[in-house]
Amino acid sequence: MRIALDAMGGDHGPAPNVAGAIQALQASPDLSVALVGDEAILRPALAAVGDHPADRISIVHASQTVGMNEKPAEAMRAKPDNSIAKCWGLLAKKQVDGLVSAGNTGAVVAAGLFLRKFLKCVHRPGIATVMPTAKGRCVIMDVGANVFPKPRHLLEYGAMGSVFARHMLGIERPTIGLMNVGEEEGKGHDLSQEAFGLFRASSLSDRFVGNIEGRDIHTGKVDVVVTDGFVGNVIIKLSQGLFEFVMGMVGKEVIGALSAEADKAKQAIHGLVQKYHYSAFGGAPLLGVEGVCIICHGSSKDRAIANAIGVAAQDVRVKLNEKIVAELETLPIAE
Amino acid sequence: MRIALDAMGGDHGPAPNVAGAIQALQASPDLSVALVGDEAILRPALAAVGDHPADRISIVHASQTVGMNEKPAEAMRAKPDNSIAKCWGLLAKKQVDGLVSAGNTGAVVAAGLFLRKFLKCVHRPGIATVMPTAKGRCVIMDVGANVFPKPRHLLEYGAMGSVFARHMLGIERPTIGLMNVGEEEGKGHDLSQEAFGLFRASSLSDRFVGNIEGRDIHTGKVDVVVTDGFVGNVIIKLSQGLFEFVMGMVGKEVIGALSAEADKAKQAIHGLVQKYHYSAFGGAPLLGVEGVCIICHGSSKDRAIANAIGVAAQDVRVKLNEKIVAELETLPIAE
Repeated sequence: MRIALDAMGGDHGPAPNVAGAIQALQASPDLSVALVGDEAILRPALAAVGDHPADRISIVHASQTVGMNEKPAEAMRAKPDNSIAKCWGLLAKKQVDGLVSAGNTGAVVAAGLFLRKFLKCVHRPGIATVMPTAKGRCVIMDVGANVFPKPRHLLEYGAMGSVFARHMLGIERPTIGLMNVGEEEGKGHDLSQEAFGLFRASSLSDRFVGNIEGRDIHTGKVDVVVTDGFVGNVIIKLSQGLFEFVMGMVGKEVIGALSAEADKAKQAIHGLVQKYHYSAFGGAPLLGVEGVCIICHGSSKDRAIANAIGVAAQDVRVKLNEKIVAELETLPIAE
Repeated sequence: MRIALDAMGGDHGPAPNVAGAIQALQASPDLSVALVGDEAILRPALAAVGDHPADRISIVHASQTVGMNEKPAEAMRAKPDNSIAKCWGLLAKKQVDGLVSAGNTGAVVAAGLFLRKFLKCVHRPGIATVMPTAKGRCVIMDVGANVFPKPRHLLEYGAMGSVFARHMLGIERPTIGLMNVGEEEGKGHDLSQEAFGLFRASSLSDRFVGNIEGRDIHTGKVDVVVTDGFVGNVIIKLSQGLFEFVMGMVGKEVIGALSAEADKAKQAIHGLVQKYHYSAFGGAPLLGVEGVCIICHGSSKDRAIANAIGVAAQDVRVKLNEKIVAELETLPIAE
């Protein structure tokens, strides 16, 4: 099993990518990693790491790098030999089984969509993300690949998110909810009303609980939250920002009120932050494309990169894509 | 100054409405309240309250009540003498200066839009909500009145939210941000791209900071967050749910780790919950209609109702609507 890592991607440059790759290799003996990026930078970075399984890590040269704030489409045109496009190229030629990138998310998605190698029955790929809930974890899809989807796309996201929840989170029969502004049928805009009808008429209907609201996500009301990429993107970024805001206030106000046991409280708060921080959840898969693509947060450190490579390898091992196609084939014929 | 209160609205029936009205009257000597609802229920409920300024509180009979989960349009047709419609009727006839309801939000908005008494220059009213941030407070608009707006509506929400922030939150020159999936110009769907252009070309351009992301809300990056009612509704409900989830975990994990100082930590956590709970923010105004309309959370208790009546009275005192029209008149002519 071979995974391509966009070694130039992310806010912190190649260092956490190289370190994360080596952690992942140490955890999985059946894995090899191709570091994709500028050889002149990556060669010494790799050499600087003392102990590593040299036979399972290689460098694939890419002369260009897409900046984190570059416009995706323009960057892809202006920099044909960039590390993201090269990762996708390796995947398209089946020289790797999957790719991982903490680079410019828009560019990773744009390059993937541009290839148009979608799985059978998939009309538009989407990004799935795992979020913590009071009952465990849920999958949210889409969180940014498709900001103005058609109803059919949302139905497919429900099916794909559900397969992901079953095989990657171990939830036997995942329930599915449609993000809306109220629970009752008929709520929301045309997209949500039409998607509601598709779910009810589909083979997913027995697992579809109907509309859910923003407050239901973290109570764990459903296992799969289906939404358009605009709302999904706001959800994950808002959740991250609010979590940091609340934990910051808790740190200040609660620790400030204590004296003898302040250190104990600090440790408990630190434990919560570790447990619920996004890096614990190993990147977000772009589902619906041939091969495996895991997108990491730009601020990912080595632990997050290693987790994401692990998730990519696991996607390949469980044959997630075959299972997605099998699930989609049970849905009604697309219009 | 006279405020109509939908005394039948909310999850808890008339009791918190009656108690909240009396608290508000005690706080403001220039205020009178009309309790709107079933006289046979309200008369004894009011009599049961010992000490109250009887000359400043009256009952206006409405024989019907809209349930919290009824479909708004159907309920309005089937129950013409409901308490929400009666409040709007009093406002339309200028028998009151404002109305407050913790009832079915969709019905309150639908009844208001049905009257079509919009302020000059307003194309669609929207609901504004105040949220806590690391720097103080911000206004989010719209949070559910208009789930599929036109770009022009968003421009008006920026203007109205900005007037609200200035006169109700005391922010001299409020900054405005457009909720999007990334900061760069050109991000998002057609609505966000066209709204971005309108803001840049408008008289608000010097206060418009551009696109903001979900994580920017609680850092307090801007004073006014402009968004469509679908996304805004998800934002406020998600924030409430996540806040409760995180504070619940903090309560369990942090208190669980302490012994001698557990009570001190409990008090600090309780203080945070009180400070940031939605009831501290006094309801959400439907801006853009003639008169004042404040919508409360269905679960509002007496404190939240009293705060909302106080906000309605303050809107009237500062002549918020005149100031909204003055601000909107400086915008470019509507297409």
